[in-house]
Amino acid sequence: MKELKIPLIKDGTVIDHITAGNAVKVLHILGIPKTSSSIVSVAMNVRSRLGKKDIVKVENREIDPNEVNKIALIAPKATINIIREYEVAKKYRVQLPDEIIGIVRCANPTCVSNSSEPVKSRFIVTNKDEPQIKCYFCEREPEDIADRII
Amino acid sequence: MKELKIPLIKDGTVIDHITAGNAVKVLHILGIPKTSSSIVSVAMNVRSRLGKKDIVKVENREIDPNEVNKIALIAPKATINIIREYEVAKKYRVQLPDEIIGIVRCANPTCVSNSSEPVKSRFIVTNKDEPQIKCYFCEREPEDIADRII
Repeated sequence: MKELKIPLIKDGTVIDHITAGNAVKVLHILGIPKTSSSIVSVAMNVRSRLGKKDIVKVENREIDPNEVNKIALIAPKATINIIREYEVAKKYRVQLPDEIIGIVRCANPTCVSNSSEPVKSRFIVTNKDEPQIKCYFCEREPEDIADRII
Repeated sequence: MKELKIPLIKDGTVIDHITAGNAVKVLHILGIPKTSSSIVSVAMNVRSRLGKKDIVKVENREIDPNEVNKIALIAPKATINIIREYEVAKKYRVQLPDEIIGIVRCANPTCVSNSSEPVKSRFIVTNKDEPQIKCYFCEREPEDIADRII
């Protein structure tokens, strides 16, 4: 017996083609485990046509556009599959918008977005393939975007 | 098709019966993803005889006693299965030792174990079923042990 049968997901979201090693960051973005009491499964360093990848499956939850934008920042090649009644109801690739608003905290402590002013953080996306962003206000470019996601 | 066949692990470790919701903390203890380029798979909130549980499988790695002690602190009912050539070569339940040395940082900033003295942190295990520990030096009991693991 070198195989194991596992049930497919009935309703939920499958996030495929996550940059290898980033599945735990995706879980963090989704607030898992705190936000889910349904089954969540994760596979890391799985072989695929384009090298290694991670996969995250979340039952009974369809992820929302704000979460998709965050995932695009750390896994720009990820695909989102919304599953309903065992079928793929929607499938799309994540896509970084031209601007990221209210999602990443600026690394510059004196940036106006970190002050007590009512200003949301705002970044211009300067590279969509290997995500790079630049603060709209102070032009600081965060080094590790994943660590700065709000 | 409501099932999917996945290959069983050839060599590695299966950590079963992890307290539901704590799989990500177990990955953190194992230093994953940084320490593993082999396949790691995780299932959370899986139904079992005793309620819900998490499972972590790590290929091509046999976890060491120091890691087992850390896991015991956050998942006291976990079982460790060492797999070799698709067979369970060893199986045992994690067990908290009477003392925890050099694994948890004391929450008290003035504790001698947090000073510049060459003193390793040391805790007495006061409850093994629902892990509770008390600092040997200052008697402080950390509230969230998982957040204080070194």
